[in-house]
Amino acid sequence: MIIDKLYEEVQKKGCVCVGLDTAPEYLPESLIKENGTIGQAIFEFNRRIIDATHDVAGCFKVQIAYYESMGMEGLEAYKKTLAYLREKGGVTIADIKRGDIAKTAEMYAKAHFSGDFEVDMVTLVPYMGMDSFLPYLPYVKNEEKGMFILVRTSNPGSKDFQYIKNTNGITLYDTVGGCVQNLGSDFMGTCGYSSIGAVIGGTSSEEASSIRTSLNQTFFLIPGYGAQGGKASDIALYLKNGNGGVVNSSRGILLAYRKADNEAHFEDAARQEVVRMREEIARECQLLCK
Amino acid sequence: MIIDKLYEEVQKKGCVCVGLDTAPEYLPESLIKENGTIGQAIFEFNRRIIDATHDVAGCFKVQIAYYESMGMEGLEAYKKTLAYLREKGGVTIADIKRGDIAKTAEMYAKAHFSGDFEVDMVTLVPYMGMDSFLPYLPYVKNEEKGMFILVRTSNPGSKDFQYIKNTNGITLYDTVGGCVQNLGSDFMGTCGYSSIGAVIGGTSSEEASSIRTSLNQTFFLIPGYGAQGGKASDIALYLKNGNGGVVNSSRGILLAYRKADNEAHFEDAARQEVVRMREEIARECQLLCK
Repeated sequence: MIIDKLYEEVQKKGCVCVGLDTAPEYLPESLIKENGTIGQAIFEFNRRIIDATHDVAGCFKVQIAYYESMGMEGLEAYKKTLAYLREKGGVTIADIKRGDIAKTAEMYAKAHFSGDFEVDMVTLVPYMGMDSFLPYLPYVKNEEKGMFILVRTSNPGSKDFQYIKNTNGITLYDTVGGCVQNLGSDFMGTCGYSSIGAVIGGTSSEEASSIRTSLNQTFFLIPGYGAQGGKASDIALYLKNGNGGVVNSSRGILLAYRKADNEAHFEDAARQEVVRMREEIARECQLLCK
Repeated sequence: MIIDKLYEEVQKKGCVCVGLDTAPEYLPESLIKENGTIGQAIFEFNRRIIDATHDVAGCFKVQIAYYESMGMEGLEAYKKTLAYLREKGGVTIADIKRGDIAKTAEMYAKAHFSGDFEVDMVTLVPYMGMDSFLPYLPYVKNEEKGMFILVRTSNPGSKDFQYIKNTNGITLYDTVGGCVQNLGSDFMGTCGYSSIGAVIGGTSSEEASSIRTSLNQTFFLIPGYGAQGGKASDIALYLKNGNGGVVNSSRGILLAYRKADNEAHFEDAARQEVVRMREEIARECQLLCK
């Protein structure tokens, strides 16, 4: 089960998920000049970030939208980034947020669990219903793949639908969360979590303990740290002894070099930020355990 | 407004949306032999289908998952197919079902409303909330683009979440539908519909008249005809005088040549199926108007 590998990576390296949401405007100018094309520069940027952080990051998450926005050239950089991550051997999540059914979902599963864009885990959207996920399950069972299903996000609009209560007073996100955990019970790792995880935004800490308690076998992918307003003390509540999820940061890591004024060695600044973030969150987790 | 162009196309050519969900196994063997690569064969298949149907189809919908599943080669065929459709001048919908927020949604909007993968309209998913759609709106306003937001789908799993009733007895799909229509009111065409449409599965006809009445300014993209069990008589209920939506068929059209046993001229069989489907639905619409 891929979740055991992810759990182990987090155990060894910490809970930080390095988000490679690499936009051209994030690149140091010198890097663009040194490389023939923007696509090549983006790959080179990612490669140096990966090299500098893979021993202190629990996993990597690549946001496909950034690459899609650059058309074929961007997707070539995406493909090369994923191949490089495979070489490094850690766990890679493709943040694709796909959500479709039947043969179309089969095609998405094939697209992201094999071939040019192969990764270990993907993010998926539940709106169409639980049958959306069926075509991915053979890969989870037989090929060490996994997924994170959107349950509760941290954007302001999450209130629009995810917080709607049904006639029994249960929110949509709780209903979805229950279905996700239920689906996951057939794909449990030895670590106590399943390979069917949930995306849970790292804000709204007042809901954290009930979410963590009810989804006790579900590993979390937690966005929202830093740029989106999630504090380490909030996020610790979702982590359960420090290893119940991974915490994504993208711009905070990729652009750390600007704060550090260290364009030439942007990867060093990225590494320092990963280590800082990891320690900050670990500290908060320890405080909770006391 | 793009919706006026789509409305006009449907007025002239009928409500059939040709779904180019082109899987390699759909291609006639002879076509594969004639073309150097599968990617080339897929484009060639699409090109001939487009040529044979563009004067009898209201629009085209390209399901990106099928192309994504073939990696870079598939996406090259996707890009070429879209370029060919642009040349032909009709309305093209990319069935991408993306759903994300903030900068990521901005990236998806850029990806599919400009550059290599430019189309007229895209499909989007509402789970993350109404702020998911904001980055697309400048394109709707200024660049003749539009979208169809998933409201109620026709798969069995649609019942899992879309039919959940809130404390006032309103289903999630009705809540989403209301938000979609509301958003659309700022992007109205002269045809009486807005450029913010809805995906409404063509089954569950008992709900059709209330959906059609409440979403009276919302144009529908209707999947589920044929292969997925939607009958023309059901679908007519969603169309409102025959021009309130487009009805997608993919396999029914692409694989018509097998039924007709006419591999050499697969595009003729496709055209005949589009015309047959168009007339079948038009007949049902006329019956309703009587």
